[in-house]
Amino acid sequence: MRNTDNIIANEKIDARKLRRAKKIITELYDELPNYIARGHGPFLAAIYDADGKQIVRAANSVVSMNCSHNHAEMNAIRDAEELLHTYDLSGHNLSLYVTAEPCIMCLGGIMWSGIRDVYFGVTSGVVESITGFDEGFKPNWLNEFKRRNITVYGNIEPEHGESVLRDYMTQNRIVYKPQRD
Amino acid sequence: MRNTDNIIANEKIDARKLRRAKKIITELYDELPNYIARGHGPFLAAIYDADGKQIVRAANSVVSMNCSHNHAEMNAIRDAEELLHTYDLSGHNLSLYVTAEPCIMCLGGIMWSGIRDVYFGVTSGVVESITGFDEGFKPNWLNEFKRRNITVYGNIEPEHGESVLRDYMTQNRIVYKPQRD
Repeated sequence: MRNTDNIIANEKIDARKLRRAKKIITELYDELPNYIARGHGPFLAAIYDADGKQIVRAANSVVSMNCSHNHAEMNAIRDAEELLHTYDLSGHNLSLYVTAEPCIMCLGGIMWSGIRDVYFGVTSGVVESITGFDEGFKPNWLNEFKRRNITVYGNIEPEHGESVLRDYMTQNRIVYKPQRD
Repeated sequence: MRNTDNIIANEKIDARKLRRAKKIITELYDELPNYIARGHGPFLAAIYDADGKQIVRAANSVVSMNCSHNHAEMNAIRDAEELLHTYDLSGHNLSLYVTAEPCIMCLGGIMWSGIRDVYFGVTSGVVESITGFDEGFKPNWLNEFKRRNITVYGNIEPEHGESVLRDYMTQNRIVYKPQRD
């Protein structure tokens, strides 16, 4: 469903949740250029508890760590599980905030982790058109997440997120994707 | 397409590749109980180069490492990238062999890694029915991989793989999945 903000969601939009998500994702967009300047990829994620306290924050580290799995969401979940000493975060009632729609790998990573709510910035279509990354195939994923009791809100403040991605490309930074020839 | 072995594949079946895959996946099934006995989850993966040399072998370590992302495929890819000092394995022309069909997360992990060929044992339907794991949603993934020039052969020696999974469940080992209530 979409409201006047063009928010995408898999539940009736809760104004308080959306307000908090806009604030957090705006902060992530604002901080992302600092991570990029230090060699990170152009995506930033954070995990918060139900009281609004940040548990972890992590940027994409594919290039800096030489690991193609080190997307921001995967790094944040791994860090949270390490911090909380568990492979199942569901009992901690956590929300993931991320500057862009999760790719197919990260969707799976979220499902396995027990994260309860996902809030994202720019959509995969925007990511792919600006950067050339291949975000994978994930038809109908908002409904698939709803079936699994994972709430999703997306397309949050997208103009801001697009501008960060465009800046990344303008700087001729690495688009870390495998050769497909 | 399927042949008389009920092999699933996204290219015309190459007898030499299939013979090698049967041999390697049988070895993985045979070794998997030893990994399980040491606390690993019931999946084992290996990456081989084009000369048939094994580069890495890794089992699922979700429970032992407290990380929900540590599926066998993810561990093997991470280890290979660390060994070869790259986030893009495509130049190394590598094949992934795994005892079961990759879940949605691992499909994405394979896509991002540059692995060229995937060979798997039991299908996700079998994994889900025996263990109760939720392997995610991945309609038409063999064609999606074909579009990306990733070859897939699956359902290799499934009876053997099923028996290992059934033994895992009989031992009352952990089915490490998040609560969905």
